[in-house]
Amino acid sequence: MSTAQPLSALSADQLASFRETQQTAYDELKASGLKLDLTRGKPSTEQLDLSNGLLTLPTQVNDASGADTRNYGNLQGIAELREIFAELLWVSPDQLVAGGNSSLTMMKDTLVDLVLFGGVDSPKPWRLEEKVRFICPVPGYDRHHTLLDSLGIEMITVPMTPDGPDADAVAALVADDPTIKGMWLVPTYSNPAGSVCSQDVAAKLAAMPTAAHDFKIFWDNAYAFHHLTEDEVKSADILSLASAAGHPHRPIVFASTSKITFAGAGVAFLAASPEQVKWYLGHLGKGSIGPDKVNQLRHAEFFGNAEGVITHMRRHRDIIAPKFAEVQRVLRERLGGLDVATWTDPVGGYFVSLDVLPGTASRVVELAKAAGVALTPAGASYPYGNDPQDTNIRLAPTYPALAEVTPAMEAVATCVLLAAAEKLSAGGQGR
Amino acid sequence: MSTAQPLSALSADQLASFRETQQTAYDELKASGLKLDLTRGKPSTEQLDLSNGLLTLPTQVNDASGADTRNYGNLQGIAELREIFAELLWVSPDQLVAGGNSSLTMMKDTLVDLVLFGGVDSPKPWRLEEKVRFICPVPGYDRHHTLLDSLGIEMITVPMTPDGPDADAVAALVADDPTIKGMWLVPTYSNPAGSVCSQDVAAKLAAMPTAAHDFKIFWDNAYAFHHLTEDEVKSADILSLASAAGHPHRPIVFASTSKITFAGAGVAFLAASPEQVKWYLGHLGKGSIGPDKVNQLRHAEFFGNAEGVITHMRRHRDIIAPKFAEVQRVLRERLGGLDVATWTDPVGGYFVSLDVLPGTASRVVELAKAAGVALTPAGASYPYGNDPQDTNIRLAPTYPALAEVTPAMEAVATCVLLAAAEKLSAGGQGR
Repeated sequence: MSTAQPLSALSADQLASFRETQQTAYDELKASGLKLDLTRGKPSTEQLDLSNGLLTLPTQVNDASGADTRNYGNLQGIAELREIFAELLWVSPDQLVAGGNSSLTMMKDTLVDLVLFGGVDSPKPWRLEEKVRFICPVPGYDRHHTLLDSLGIEMITVPMTPDGPDADAVAALVADDPTIKGMWLVPTYSNPAGSVCSQDVAAKLAAMPTAAHDFKIFWDNAYAFHHLTEDEVKSADILSLASAAGHPHRPIVFASTSKITFAGAGVAFLAASPEQVKWYLGHLGKGSIGPDKVNQLRHAEFFGNAEGVITHMRRHRDIIAPKFAEVQRVLRERLGGLDVATWTDPVGGYFVSLDVLPGTASRVVELAKAAGVALTPAGASYPYGNDPQDTNIRLAPTYPALAEVTPAMEAVATCVLLAAAEKLSAGGQGR
Repeated sequence: MSTAQPLSALSADQLASFRETQQTAYDELKASGLKLDLTRGKPSTEQLDLSNGLLTLPTQVNDASGADTRNYGNLQGIAELREIFAELLWVSPDQLVAGGNSSLTMMKDTLVDLVLFGGVDSPKPWRLEEKVRFICPVPGYDRHHTLLDSLGIEMITVPMTPDGPDADAVAALVADDPTIKGMWLVPTYSNPAGSVCSQDVAAKLAAMPTAAHDFKIFWDNAYAFHHLTEDEVKSADILSLASAAGHPHRPIVFASTSKITFAGAGVAFLAASPEQVKWYLGHLGKGSIGPDKVNQLRHAEFFGNAEGVITHMRRHRDIIAPKFAEVQRVLRERLGGLDVATWTDPVGGYFVSLDVLPGTASRVVELAKAAGVALTPAGASYPYGNDPQDTNIRLAPTYPALAEVTPAMEAVATCVLLAAAEKLSAGGQGR
């Protein structure tokens, strides 16, 4: 579409004609009976098949220490699996907890513990504070926001940049406001923007003065190893940065194998300062006699070592990189030069963040739904589901087969164009 | 020991001689270098081996509905496993949640939700109440008490009888005191007393008026299928009883396969009224995208149906019943007729509850420890670890091999006798 010109530059007649063309295309789309889904960051069947070796593991029942994984105990998780992921996450195995099947659950448990009991550096439990607020870089992960909201923690937004959260904006907010107790951060291939938190941004966040003495960075490294190119980004070593800056208890690192092996049947991890790990395990132990260590041993046997994880992730890349390329191709060819949308071209992670003409995101999602293409609800990437510009749409291309990504994205493009034409026509006619 | 006479009936000389005999026996015991453990209710290796079939399951990846268990979703757990345990627990599959690896975690989550948010029938979150108290039948399960204590919930005790908690005592407490918000109950083969809550007691507890509108019975049916004899007791149907009495939201039922398959790598269950299940899942969903459904499918395949569970439990019985019989034999032969101890002879569950001469339980545990036999700390079965009579000791004979149960119990008997002789000598001499 090198001949394309911005839609806003069209005359009223040209725009009417363009709109008609898109309406016709959309009507055909609707009639074609699509049933496609780009809503959630889920691995595809082909990706899940990569880990089917797990189904007949472990071949033994004792862990490396000789303990029977089939029996109670070992709240921190088996050493050999912690060693593999400690190496990958650049932390000490002693500072790593291998837990159950969900890092989201570990995040919830950590927040609940902070609310009920306070942290290692809290003057009091957060429930006794008049107000507790969190910074949420936007666009961000809807489940992070829902979790905070459920606990009565208010949310303030800062922009997500390609290098991570706007660190200056964060620093300005936290400097004088003791009600701001923490922030979310998906450091590597963020959900949905695909941003990678730079060493510089991480260092600033680790070092910045905060009015709250117990300020926490929830460092949700869900996509740490989920590269889409051969340039395999390394996450910043936030624990060391924070420790060096005199704030050892500020970051809490989360990760999991949900998008490495099986989503919901993997192993989740938490890393933090030794004191904070002890704090976490202390509260965890009130309601647990240990994680599923058989599943941990199953994973340790399956990977063998850290290199095994890296090799395994390249197999994922081979499956999903073509899907991301197809998203880019359709968006470029259908929307390029029309000035009605911008989008990210991530080098890792599970999402493409699409910004359409302000005020049309909800309409695009509505049109797509009516045409049989499910998209994440508009606004989902913002706290309280409120995208003030109504502009952001999260695309998740991993789950559909490659052959489905093309019609789904063609449909999305048609919906974006029709919504834009409607919007501009309405504006032009003063409606 | 049919010729035995009560220790208290001995003359001072006879008692001194008896004490000397026991001291000699104890010294020999100490010198023999035992290293035995009767502390926790853990399955033995032989029991765990019964479930090794799980290690190469599942043979498929889709559940009965066709959903891929390797991917996210299905917070309530897969239907085929819920159907098996719904039949066994006498509940509707719709009212049953199949969760993660720990029913204790489900209990904690439920309590935390009640504290933070309040229940379906709560006027307000429990954290906003001036005081919240729970009734704990004693002796009871130490982790129940620790959990309440960690959440600032105060504990009141009632006696555990062979038919369950003293229902009249419970009814009297809850009738006028709105701070009493709930109670623990291990209905079948209670920990540690082995009591079975009768239909009559269950009906009373289900129907009794309570000052707190949101009174909860935490019905922890951990040993529902853990029979030691061919008389396989059926638990009372507390959900139906409570519903019929107009208190459908009063009971919350917990169970798990921890002592059926693998301890810590099994599946836990929660059952309650439909509204309460919805309430639980609503809060659970804030921190979870679903349980480990691969492990659930693994279990469903392994058991096949409810009959499969029952058959499997009979294999457990064959392994552990001889250990319980040996505990009874040693206690009877060594302590019978001396009037220094009473003990339960359970027909199911994991424990024997031993009551020694008041004031000597701590001493017995101390003596045993010094002789290389680890026992649960005295007082562990009481809230705050406080056994007012210092009389109760929990014996857990499942984990050691049968050949180890004999020397362990011989050692316990020697310690009980020595402690009793010490106590009676001291009393006799006015010390």
